[in-house]
Amino acid sequence: MSGNGGKEIDRLIEQMAKLPGLGPRSARRAVLHLIKKRMLLLEPLAKSMADVAATARECVTCGNVGTSDQCEICISPKRANGQICVVGDVADLWAMERSAVFKGRYHVLGGVLSALDGVGPDELRIPLLIQRVQTDGVSEVILALSATIDGQTTAHYIADHLEGQGVSVTSLAQGVPIGGELDYLDDGTITAALKDRKSF
Amino acid sequence: MSGNGGKEIDRLIEQMAKLPGLGPRSARRAVLHLIKKRMLLLEPLAKSMADVAATARECVTCGNVGTSDQCEICISPKRANGQICVVGDVADLWAMERSAVFKGRYHVLGGVLSALDGVGPDELRIPLLIQRVQTDGVSEVILALSATIDGQTTAHYIADHLEGQGVSVTSLAQGVPIGGELDYLDDGTITAALKDRKSF
Repeated sequence: MSGNGGKEIDRLIEQMAKLPGLGPRSARRAVLHLIKKRMLLLEPLAKSMADVAATARECVTCGNVGTSDQCEICISPKRANGQICVVGDVADLWAMERSAVFKGRYHVLGGVLSALDGVGPDELRIPLLIQRVQTDGVSEVILALSATIDGQTTAHYIADHLEGQGVSVTSLAQGVPIGGELDYLDDGTITAALKDRKSF
Repeated sequence: MSGNGGKEIDRLIEQMAKLPGLGPRSARRAVLHLIKKRMLLLEPLAKSMADVAATARECVTCGNVGTSDQCEICISPKRANGQICVVGDVADLWAMERSAVFKGRYHVLGGVLSALDGVGPDELRIPLLIQRVQTDGVSEVILALSATIDGQTTAHYIADHLEGQGVSVTSLAQGVPIGGELDYLDDGTITAALKDRKSF
């Protein structure tokens, strides 16, 4: 039911359709586009994918994705300021890096605690985080986890387990997002923003 | 500005972001997803892309995309019913095939005539179509071109050049799409549907 271009092309369409953000229809369009621009797009893309498949690995320290055993952030001496920002996923780490304001290092949990999905602390990189805090000269742990129930449960769990380790535990501020209109904000956000109001 | 995973990963994200339907944000998401499922998704996808890059080609007869010199439709004796359906693009051919109602063969023009974009008959596969009609025992040419000005100009051009060749030239019916609500239809469609009304 995909295209009509023989089994190699059909298989490629099927695989592309599994990517987040693409469905069968857009996968077909993307594959036809790639075939039309074979030299310019398809061949370089095939090569890049093979390269990444061969080289991509998890940073042993923080869990970031990179092409060496330790990621660029973990080996950069400039980033050794004693701060560790704890994020759920690599995508969150990249989002933090795009804002280019955090100068410390990261710790990627690989998800958040979830009773429903059966994700406990040992499925995540929480034990590794606690170990890092004990041995790495960490002064502050910044919890940058999603403002969902699971995210906040995870944050509380980590904060509890870091108590008495001589490290300050903070979390991202909650409030009105930049450019956000009050009218469209949920009650929870408005409540949080009001509670944490600051002098103007 | 893409990810933070080293240059191979950044390059892959950049290339993925050029696909129709994906932007920088969804390309990052797709690449992270691929890396997480390296064995299950990334490696097979890299292999399929290399396969398609090595084997995909245009059917010399109809212009469909396939993996041999002649596409499956052109070599199937079942499809030799004297009908040729003329479409603008390979995507249109695939759309026709999904409806599975047309039993003849195709001719892909590779676009439509466009004075603005400088696309003339010789940039398209129109001369090849006329040649096919003269030599291939074609009884009917069905014009399945877009209902745009350029599409209809192309249809008229082809119909003019097939006059006197002893072939009947038809085009897809225009009217209310299945599931279409009158309220949301443009005036042109309603006019066409009313003009071509049929007894109930």
